[in-house]
Amino acid sequence: MLENIFQYIDLHQNEFIQLLKEWVAIESDSVQPLPHFRQEIFKMMDIAADKLRHLGASVDLIEMGPQQLPDGQTLPIPPILLAELGNDPKKPTVCFYGHLDVQPAKKEDGWNTDPFTLVEVDGKLYGRGTSDNKGPVLAWINAVVAFKALNQDIPVNIKFIIEGMEEAGSISLDELVRREKDRFFSSVDYIVMSDNLWISKKPALTYGTRGNIYFTVEVKCRDQDFHSGTFGGILNEPMADLVSLLGSLVDSSGHILIPGIYDNVAPLSEEEKKMYETIDLNLEEYQNSSQVEKFLFDTKEEILMHLWRYPSLSIHGIEGAFDEPGAKTVIPAQVTGKFSIRLVPHMNISVVETQVKKHLEDIFSQRNSSNKLKITMILGVHPWIANIHDLQYVAARRAIKTVFGVDPDMIRDGSTIPIAKTFQDIIQKSVMMLPLGAVDDGEHSQNEKINRYNYIEGSKLFAAFFLEIAKMHS
Amino acid sequence: MLENIFQYIDLHQNEFIQLLKEWVAIESDSVQPLPHFRQEIFKMMDIAADKLRHLGASVDLIEMGPQQLPDGQTLPIPPILLAELGNDPKKPTVCFYGHLDVQPAKKEDGWNTDPFTLVEVDGKLYGRGTSDNKGPVLAWINAVVAFKALNQDIPVNIKFIIEGMEEAGSISLDELVRREKDRFFSSVDYIVMSDNLWISKKPALTYGTRGNIYFTVEVKCRDQDFHSGTFGGILNEPMADLVSLLGSLVDSSGHILIPGIYDNVAPLSEEEKKMYETIDLNLEEYQNSSQVEKFLFDTKEEILMHLWRYPSLSIHGIEGAFDEPGAKTVIPAQVTGKFSIRLVPHMNISVVETQVKKHLEDIFSQRNSSNKLKITMILGVHPWIANIHDLQYVAARRAIKTVFGVDPDMIRDGSTIPIAKTFQDIIQKSVMMLPLGAVDDGEHSQNEKINRYNYIEGSKLFAAFFLEIAKMHS
Repeated sequence: MLENIFQYIDLHQNEFIQLLKEWVAIESDSVQPLPHFRQEIFKMMDIAADKLRHLGASVDLIEMGPQQLPDGQTLPIPPILLAELGNDPKKPTVCFYGHLDVQPAKKEDGWNTDPFTLVEVDGKLYGRGTSDNKGPVLAWINAVVAFKALNQDIPVNIKFIIEGMEEAGSISLDELVRREKDRFFSSVDYIVMSDNLWISKKPALTYGTRGNIYFTVEVKCRDQDFHSGTFGGILNEPMADLVSLLGSLVDSSGHILIPGIYDNVAPLSEEEKKMYETIDLNLEEYQNSSQVEKFLFDTKEEILMHLWRYPSLSIHGIEGAFDEPGAKTVIPAQVTGKFSIRLVPHMNISVVETQVKKHLEDIFSQRNSSNKLKITMILGVHPWIANIHDLQYVAARRAIKTVFGVDPDMIRDGSTIPIAKTFQDIIQKSVMMLPLGAVDDGEHSQNEKINRYNYIEGSKLFAAFFLEIAKMHS
Repeated sequence: MLENIFQYIDLHQNEFIQLLKEWVAIESDSVQPLPHFRQEIFKMMDIAADKLRHLGASVDLIEMGPQQLPDGQTLPIPPILLAELGNDPKKPTVCFYGHLDVQPAKKEDGWNTDPFTLVEVDGKLYGRGTSDNKGPVLAWINAVVAFKALNQDIPVNIKFIIEGMEEAGSISLDELVRREKDRFFSSVDYIVMSDNLWISKKPALTYGTRGNIYFTVEVKCRDQDFHSGTFGGILNEPMADLVSLLGSLVDSSGHILIPGIYDNVAPLSEEEKKMYETIDLNLEEYQNSSQVEKFLFDTKEEILMHLWRYPSLSIHGIEGAFDEPGAKTVIPAQVTGKFSIRLVPHMNISVVETQVKKHLEDIFSQRNSSNKLKITMILGVHPWIANIHDLQYVAARRAIKTVFGVDPDMIRDGSTIPIAKTFQDIIQKSVMMLPLGAVDDGEHSQNEKINRYNYIEGSKLFAAFFLEIAKMHS
């Protein structure tokens, strides 16, 4: 049965690419808040809805109201698409999350071809959104198409939640998920998304993302800046306080110096350790492509662990100081340092918030400065981690083995992808990230592409996954 | 004789104010590089030249060529006025430096009256340039006018060097002074400028200014910034290196931590110490008007010494990091910290440069970072100090006692005024700053003013100074 499906996909690959070409042609940019682009997203959502209806799905386009822009204007938020194909109580229900909006792109930015005209060169399908995320959304749909075309029973109930505002921060997605928790999502067993990339030449399964906690540290003397000739020498200068505070956060080996911060970091198990060893990462290549002379660690395993399973602290910058070229002899009177910590299991936002504030207050009080200190947590997103023994992870591993002939890299993402954690927390079902894109797809960059191979084999992978997950429930 | 002069000045004070009003009406803004303003400066210089010629001076307006603007355009530099009145070899020759260009001003900036229409309210003469520096230039001229009007012999030879680009950095002044060293300046015995302010209700004599040495510290990993999710945890982050470098410069008591930096600071003599004690500074008032909750020091003497005779280090800011409002999870890949040290006698620029570079290189090498460090001195101006026992200081003290009935505050300026040092170094003659303006004149601010009292008594002061300095040579 799977053989027929695979053959169908192979035979119709050019049709699938033609469809991707049509979707790429729609400039569904959600980042630039302009009516023209917003209309394109609406159009894109309508086309997707038609496509799914055509496959027999029941589709709702849920209106989400207006988006308030900083300048006081409003723009309509594109509808979120909810679709359902099959509701056999004997079958498991898999819900696919994807998005059809894209990052901005212009040929002048350095594209070799028009970003909204899909062009194939050497098996690479160039175009904005090919990899992020129109290609993977269509790969899932292609899998359904194959079953339908061959009149084969789809072994799972399928749901879709597709949005058009992901690149703009998934405005109002949370709200909808919460609202539909006991309706649309009540029958969902598994949530799959495919919005990230492999990290080597092998397929990957992603089971975790780091969280993030972002702080501002304001040190204030007065409102108006000083001239360093007139006041230099008699002030507790806010910049001196601030660099001392920021300098107390992390040492030169990357170790975070905030007392207690590592207390809740999950211990490293033997099983997890082995997963790093089997990942097919060429360290030298990675280093070269990163253009970094030397990393803090020398082995693949240590590097991956410090990107994925240990927290990191980065100082982003300072607001209110002199940041322009040239020489200005100012004593900034009010400065705000910014730093954030990537959180890992099982660190807790409010515990970390307390630790950070206490640490900075201690350092500041040792300075005996007459300035005012104000520490604010302006963002807190928990890390996400899945249980790799969940049935859908096992099913996906088998499907990968079937399609690609190898075991996947079991990976995490050092970045923060709040949607996975949102689904996990609200719907309380297993969430899996099953990427199709290659490591060099260049999401968000110039010359974004998806390989023909990844797009077509990815369509097969989803079909194989349907069968594997169904088997585990039978 | 002096009594007649004073009486003349008192009787003609409204004429002197009328003249100041005419000069204030000329919008001789040198800061905004626009042809219209530049023409106004030319006009201003012509009017001053005519005025001096009318008094019998021989006047040269020296063309200084074009000013190259950053955008590639050029503007003519206003001529520098050199004038000479009397050349009796038996008399000492006093050269007055002043400038007739002004800072920009618009009523909308918060002026109560039109900035280019002199308006008197409660004995205060409001208008741009009244205090900085048209008023003091005219006070010197008024003194000459009084002698001439009374047909009295001026007891000194008088020279003038008056420029029109001071607020724009005195472009080409150095060049002219160097060129005229052995011609115009060869007969000059004393140089007087009056381009600063008193610091209390008492008149002041200024005998020193701090120098300045400005550094940039660049820490670079690569050209392109990183995302903290994708790279946080495995990098020597440039910002961590930089805050550690900047944090090593000065402690929270304002003490500079660079080894050897205090070695060449002049020891405090008993005579100098006494001068701080007699200065009439109300610390509470000063603190309140500064809107600073607490200074690093509690006594007037310590505060003045740390502003004038001890070096100070200020961190100005960081270029290349995230400096805007909001939360951006960037790891800046190349950042440049900026700081400067106000230098005092007898610190030497090249010694300090070596000390700073060695210190930062030591700190950086302890971090064992793989980033590149580059330290650049982008500005170095030596401090200036005069010998307060020079004859012209003694003469000025006596003149102040005669006109105001008090001894002056003997003050320095914590800022860097390169012109005094330029004259001292090139011409190698005694330089004195003899300010006329009150502490609240608001140079460079809205509602700049000079008090009628300061302007008129200042004119008398210059006349008295002519006599006192002549006496010392007779």
